Amino acid sequence: MEVLARDGEARAGLLDTPHGRVQTPTFMPVGTKGTVKGLTPADLRGAGAGIILGNTYHLYLRPGADLVREAGDLHAFSGWDGPMLTDSGGFQVFSLAKTRKISERGVRFASVYDGSTHEFTPELTTRVQEDLGADIAMVLDECPPANAARGYHEDSLRRTARWARRCKDAHSREDQALFGIVQGGLHEDLRRESLERTVEIGFPGYAVGGLSVGESREEMLQTLAATALMLPWESPRYFMGIGDPVGILQVISLGVDMFDCVLPTRLARHGAALTPDGRLNLKNSRFRRDFGPLDPECSCETCTGYSRAYLAHLVREDELLGHRLLTLHNVHFTANLCRQARREISSGTYAAWARAWISRYETAR
Amino acid sequence: MEVLARDGEARAGLLDTPHGRVQTPTFMPVGTKGTVKGLTPADLRGAGAGIILGNTYHLYLRPGADLVREAGDLHAFSGWDGPMLTDSGGFQVFSLAKTRKISERGVRFASVYDGSTHEFTPELTTRVQEDLGADIAMVLDECPPANAARGYHEDSLRRTARWARRCKDAHSREDQALFGIVQGGLHEDLRRESLERTVEIGFPGYAVGGLSVGESREEMLQTLAATALMLPWESPRYFMGIGDPVGILQVISLGVDMFDCVLPTRLARHGAALTPDGRLNLKNSRFRRDFGPLDPECSCETCTGYSRAYLAHLVREDELLGHRLLTLHNVHFTANLCRQARREISSGTYAAWARAWISRYETAR
Ligand SMILES: [Zn+2]
Ligand SMILES: [Zn+2]
Repeated sequence: MEVLARDGEARAGLLDTPHGRVQTPTFMPVGTKGTVKGLTPADLRGAGAGIILGNTYHLYLRPGADLVREAGDLHAFSGWDGPMLTDSGGFQVFSLAKTRKISERGVRFASVYDGSTHEFTPELTTRVQEDLGADIAMVLDECPPANAARGYHEDSLRRTARWARRCKDAHSREDQALFGIVQGGLHEDLRRESLERTVEIGFPGYAVGGLSVGESREEMLQTLAATALMLPWESPRYFMGIGDPVGILQVISLGVDMFDCVLPTRLARHGAALTPDGRLNLKNSRFRRDFGPLDPECSCETCTGYSRAYLAHLVREDELLGHRLLTLHNVHFTANLCRQARREISSGTYAAWARAWISRYETAR
Repeated sequence: MEVLARDGEARAGLLDTPHGRVQTPTFMPVGTKGTVKGLTPADLRGAGAGIILGNTYHLYLRPGADLVREAGDLHAFSGWDGPMLTDSGGFQVFSLAKTRKISERGVRFASVYDGSTHEFTPELTTRVQEDLGADIAMVLDECPPANAARGYHEDSLRRTARWARRCKDAHSREDQALFGIVQGGLHEDLRRESLERTVEIGFPGYAVGGLSVGESREEMLQTLAATALMLPWESPRYFMGIGDPVGILQVISLGVDMFDCVLPTRLARHGAALTPDGRLNLKNSRFRRDFGPLDPECSCETCTGYSRAYLAHLVREDELLGHRLLTLHNVHFTANLCRQARREISSGTYAAWARAWISRYETAR
């Protein structure tokens, strides 16, 4: 990771991966099951996506890491030959499973698909991610709810650090980076302890996990601010789970380089589009006869080729093309927001620009 | 319509429309609600689709012909600027409506969307199709079930002829062709009567309707053969409702120029792909680890960019991208089959080629 420009705590940089260079800050669209809902790799590239995220939890269960390995890796299987990151699956175990049992060895859980029992250990999730073959893999961590007791966070972050060590020991692919994850809830001292334990093990990049999990936005930003300041300057910083435009600009201002969220793609499936003037719900009847472009400032295929009225019709009729075109726009919009942020950071004008951007986004209509 | 080559009864020709020239025989993918499931106009063009069909019934109800007219026409609304045909909506009234009431004036029916009552008259469906603005519009016809009594077919075809006259009288757009429709069930003499009445009114093109509605394939071909022989040579011939590869080759051999069916797109949504070696159901477990292309002889984006294993994964997980990629292939495959047919007709080798093609398709596996 090369930091090219700094503006306050915000940074613009370059991250080299075996599948290409990523300009940061960068938003990673989520390709849950080896596909970003409805989009092809060519669409993603056209939308300006720099790096894609794959979900180990889902791919391990369906179609199975062995099958993906037989195909070569997740790049070959899905046709996306650009940079890719896989999570460890831990977050899904903690958010999706109705039953799970954590031990020092790992975490047992019931599959969300068929209820079958599985156990993720640091060694297994590392091997699975080596099979998937993304450029960046993540350590297995526990992500407790923000409101868990302090004592629980303490025990958990220490176990997560021990798991991180086991992941690093198990990791052998030289063409894949393994990132550590900092936990500790909303407690600044626990964040510091988690960070120190993780940095002590030593990773080429660090993620801030356990935020965006139910706490207020203010608490999230406060905790992130304190944590980010302590992270090694020369390593990429990945904030797990933010994808709304305002949140993106806020975490960038705190020095985050990478972030992911299903929000832009999920909104699209619900008929909502992101624009500089706020979120548009295309099911709203005012769009039925609006023959203007979705976002007049956007250069994506959706905004240059179709009207709001047509998109509103597709959304109302639950047509596949509606999901596809809105997903394409939302990914393009979010990638473009990051591109603008990089430019402003390089010009040293990030803070004022972001303030104005957020003000327009939040006050329009 | 210019007939360029004849091979037995099969013909290869050119059909000029205000939105471009169509090479015949041609398959028309169905864009029910102003979109061919999951595909953009650029996709359709890339797949080799020459002319698209829009459904008046659906567009009249959702989003409404007035709204489409405000957008300009269905070309402007949907972004497809190539040749387009709209049906009259009659077929959907007879196939979808739980209740309908036919009178000399027209047909009353309950909307499939909300049960609201509407009446299609020859004048209304003609005006609606003028609002939609396709290159080719169809007269309002009644399409009785194949097994209706002979007397019913007789009454019905005569009413359909009277409706056809009213459609022609109501039709005023000079940049739009209005085609007549021949009915008459499986009765050769009634087909002749319907054809004579329709040709007497005089249309720039003729459709054979009321087949592919429950009769056997043999009965269908026999009736079509007798009817097609009587159609004016210089006019385009449209067979309503065929889209399986074998059926396409059979109706082409009887002198049909155009045909439509939801089959290729519907199959895709159910996870099935058309190939020269028959229909593949990608839910079948034998494709889970099949890393070869879907159809090794196909040059579409799906077959050149993805493996059967990946497509099988998408289909099993009901992913949007799976529907999209299979739809793209099935449309490409069907368009390509028509392209091959045109070539064989021009070479005078159609019959032997079609026989061999069907034999491979039907005997493989
Ligand atoms: Zn856009
Ligand atoms: Zn293909």
